[in-house]
Amino acid sequence: MFKLYGFPVSNYYNMVKLALLEKGLEFEEVLTRPSQKEDFLQKSPMGKVPCLVVDEGPLSETDVILDFLEELSSDINFYPVDPYQKAKVKELMKSTELYLELVARRLLGALFFDQSLSEELKTEITGQLEKGAKALNKLLKFEPYAAGAERTYADIVLYYTVALSNLATQKVLDINLEDKLPGLHTWLELMGENSFVQAVDADQNEALKAMAG
Amino acid sequence: MFKLYGFPVSNYYNMVKLALLEKGLEFEEVLTRPSQKEDFLQKSPMGKVPCLVVDEGPLSETDVILDFLEELSSDINFYPVDPYQKAKVKELMKSTELYLELVARRLLGALFFDQSLSEELKTEITGQLEKGAKALNKLLKFEPYAAGAERTYADIVLYYTVALSNLATQKVLDINLEDKLPGLHTWLELMGENSFVQAVDADQNEALKAMAG
Repeated sequence: MFKLYGFPVSNYYNMVKLALLEKGLEFEEVLTRPSQKEDFLQKSPMGKVPCLVVDEGPLSETDVILDFLEELSSDINFYPVDPYQKAKVKELMKSTELYLELVARRLLGALFFDQSLSEELKTEITGQLEKGAKALNKLLKFEPYAAGAERTYADIVLYYTVALSNLATQKVLDINLEDKLPGLHTWLELMGENSFVQAVDADQNEALKAMAG
Repeated sequence: MFKLYGFPVSNYYNMVKLALLEKGLEFEEVLTRPSQKEDFLQKSPMGKVPCLVVDEGPLSETDVILDFLEELSSDINFYPVDPYQKAKVKELMKSTELYLELVARRLLGALFFDQSLSEELKTEITGQLEKGAKALNKLLKFEPYAAGAERTYADIVLYYTVALSNLATQKVLDINLEDKLPGLHTWLELMGENSFVQAVDADQNEALKAMAG
């Protein structure tokens, strides 16, 4: 049985967890925070979560784990068979990570720990967000799913990226991503109807409440 | 025939170019700088290079393009067949990008344009490099190739990442990556024996000379 290391507040963790649930793969959750302890670094070289331990050994990096799971036999697939359409899904996933997730992460100190952010930095991050949203809008379809008619990994990555990023951009920059990504609102409602998404979100909310004490 | 947009000074461009050469795929090089012009953004949503245009349309993001090329029929493959070993190669590629390439890129202003860098920032980037190198050393095999006995995409990504990063870290931080990644020196010599690598490097050197005017 797979062991999934991480904790349900991590949005990357939740991407892998949702994929495992959707694919019906058995796994055990091992509650773990990012750590620089040597025994954890043996599994996840940067000490990050999530990390998935399978029979052959450990794997880190969310998109690497998602690709690995796709190669296991399952009736549920998250990439199209056609190589070009598959590549377009990956392009959307990578763009979501680089131009939305990694930009919004610069706001997390302000979101969670009330760190102050200079007006100069706010302007810089806002500019990066505008540019990233413009790029994403060229790739996003919402017909009704992110990459087209079928559900793909692009939906999973976008859902948990937006969940965290939109908290940050709204609180710190007063920017609602729904205003920047036309179609996002309706798609979020669609995603929210999925029972596995509801289960992952419920675990996350419970963990957030526990953190808030 | 494929069209590869970009220019031979871009190390990401050279990764895709080497893969195309190695796989014996016909392609035309279209000399292009990163651009925010709308017609180029239709091909590469962030305006970055490389971008590969195939029969079905455009693709951006280097690792996405490399994965796409691997799905085309060729006698030359750069991923192992075994899903876990394939994932380990991808983990090494992703780690090279996030923890070496993207860190060293913070030095490019100082490398190419003599921008000054505060001691505080130098210390921060040095710390990130040390942490990244420690992580990479857990994944690198150099037996004799980066991920093991066979040549993989991890070699291609590492080669062009190191080519640029080591220029930057030596000039700006006085850090030679060969001192941080044991086995790198011998592996660089091995890679340099490859005639396609030599051809790509020659094109790069010529372009650099032309830039220097």
